[in-house]
Amino acid sequence: MLYSQRLIVLRNKMDNEGLDAVWVIQPENRRYLSGFKAPDPQFTESAGSLFITQEEAILITDSRYGTEAEEEAPHFEVRVIKGEAAKALGNIILETGAKRVAFEENYVTWQLYRELMEKLGQGPELVPIQGLIREMRQIKDPYEIKALKASAQMVSSIMGEIIGWMNPGLTEREVAWQIHTLAYRRGAEDLAFPPIVASGPNGALPHAVAGERKIGPDEPIVLDMGVKLNGYCSDITRTVFLSEPPAEFRKIYRIVREAQQKALEVMRAGLMSDEVDGVAREVIKKAGYGEYFGHSLGHGVGLATHEAPRVGPLKPVRLEAGMVVTVEPGIYIPGKGGVRLEEMVLIQEGGVELLTTDPNFYQF
Amino acid sequence: MLYSQRLIVLRNKMDNEGLDAVWVIQPENRRYLSGFKAPDPQFTESAGSLFITQEEAILITDSRYGTEAEEEAPHFEVRVIKGEAAKALGNIILETGAKRVAFEENYVTWQLYRELMEKLGQGPELVPIQGLIREMRQIKDPYEIKALKASAQMVSSIMGEIIGWMNPGLTEREVAWQIHTLAYRRGAEDLAFPPIVASGPNGALPHAVAGERKIGPDEPIVLDMGVKLNGYCSDITRTVFLSEPPAEFRKIYRIVREAQQKALEVMRAGLMSDEVDGVAREVIKKAGYGEYFGHSLGHGVGLATHEAPRVGPLKPVRLEAGMVVTVEPGIYIPGKGGVRLEEMVLIQEGGVELLTTDPNFYQF
Repeated sequence: MLYSQRLIVLRNKMDNEGLDAVWVIQPENRRYLSGFKAPDPQFTESAGSLFITQEEAILITDSRYGTEAEEEAPHFEVRVIKGEAAKALGNIILETGAKRVAFEENYVTWQLYRELMEKLGQGPELVPIQGLIREMRQIKDPYEIKALKASAQMVSSIMGEIIGWMNPGLTEREVAWQIHTLAYRRGAEDLAFPPIVASGPNGALPHAVAGERKIGPDEPIVLDMGVKLNGYCSDITRTVFLSEPPAEFRKIYRIVREAQQKALEVMRAGLMSDEVDGVAREVIKKAGYGEYFGHSLGHGVGLATHEAPRVGPLKPVRLEAGMVVTVEPGIYIPGKGGVRLEEMVLIQEGGVELLTTDPNFYQF
Repeated sequence: MLYSQRLIVLRNKMDNEGLDAVWVIQPENRRYLSGFKAPDPQFTESAGSLFITQEEAILITDSRYGTEAEEEAPHFEVRVIKGEAAKALGNIILETGAKRVAFEENYVTWQLYRELMEKLGQGPELVPIQGLIREMRQIKDPYEIKALKASAQMVSSIMGEIIGWMNPGLTEREVAWQIHTLAYRRGAEDLAFPPIVASGPNGALPHAVAGERKIGPDEPIVLDMGVKLNGYCSDITRTVFLSEPPAEFRKIYRIVREAQQKALEVMRAGLMSDEVDGVAREVIKKAGYGEYFGHSLGHGVGLATHEAPRVGPLKPVRLEAGMVVTVEPGIYIPGKGGVRLEEMVLIQEGGVELLTTDPNFYQF
């Protein structure tokens, strides 16, 4: 079973690192280890947390989620609490006698940490969890690869249909709504993120919001979308022209495509993430557009749209078989527009497997 | 001007509390003080932060958001940074010479706090911000009240149309999609949260996910929805029956409605939040359903769907004119179903003004 297997892996890691317990409150980590699906209604409003020792696996939640927790996380003992989470958690820690408790230092707020420390007093020690769960999540197991393939295939098919359907004169918002509609019809749980439909000068804003601007026939339109299916996200970007593009953008498009292809050709297990980023970045730099590619080449995708590993110039990590990442170089010319092209790939020993697929995608 | 006015208020408060600077990273606080609209793509992936002293107002962001920041936050000096936010922020703090810097203790992670402290060394002190911005945001100014009314009116009209349109045999997911569609057609930016369409036994789950269950003619259907308009959220719940309800649910419906009406009657500026909660809770308790009302009576609504003040049995606060809160008692019978009724109101000196409105809402 998926979740009991993951608990075994986690408990081995806890053993190696001398941890008595792990406390997990980050929603995707929580789901990954327990199967409990509820997202947090808002940040600072938690749907629950896990407390895992070698003997125990406890899911702490409140009356809003008790029934779902029981159904979705049968490997966990569900405790429905009233009042403050820090207090309830503190009691559980003291009750189990755990001395070294790992916590998610990049998710737990300073306030929650303080409240818990006050409750615990001089006894147990809270230890930053570091990469413990991130390392598990960044290598996808066969179940996850299947889920990510399904999610990537669905979004690829939506992208193909959108490109075929788009016409000049539609607003960005109308196109974004059509993306929503197709995701609903195909059975997605949700979109993975608000779709980006950035036409003309808006394309120079990497995180543009789809607005009332009408898309024109002779400008680049950046389409960036993802769906969520069985909890797993996808992420794909194409830049399209509805008729003949201006010469400069045809040139930029080819540079971005070349950067992407070069990166995809070299990418394989064993390479460092900054090397792959460098391969794409070098193509763009040599073409004279280095200053217009401000973001990283890609990122991991899984239960979250953006997760480890980051594939960029900083914080290099070794790429490993089973990682699923995006490859998405872009060139953004302020005031004029942008071109970004993004695929999702599964890293393997000898290369990559493309998870996003469509024959109609690349215009030149 | 809205944002310069808010900065004046904040700077007065900083003066009173002996703070040299305030660092703001929580997305709604950031928008409230600067006008910079970008949400965070994900938690632990910030779109930027504000650094405010008596003399300076700096918006720190990265290359993805520079252009929007300049346009949306003209009162701020925009700095587009590369690399780690804690480092850039640390440099700005050291550069301004601020000694006491307030930070959002319920939003800043333990890790970010630690990174910043390491950068700052023995110099400046980081001070929990406590209620500084929360207190500003929980009293709505005229601009916000207008925006909240528009948002509440839009969602009320959608609720009315959905109730008229629903039929037995539709799935929860189909109804949720129709809510999405109407919000899009009426011009909402987005839904404020995924709509809840919880039929029959699913109604006993306060945060049910709309699924493939077909809604029946003789069961309660909990509809909970909100839209986002000009950044402002709305939140409304109705429970409907498509034909004659079972006797028990008719009874429960009347108890919930009575609890809500009693609370609305007494609610006014000057009353404590736990007193209002108690009025509604007492009605449900007396009717013998006390154990089936597990959550608070209501919550503030504004740039976030859930914000201060909380209107519940714990952490009492004084209700004040200008607060906008929900009043949403509910009774949830595990395995059978639930009834929740929710209005959004503006608190005034002598009572409340109902912001959610529709003549067809209450069936009995």
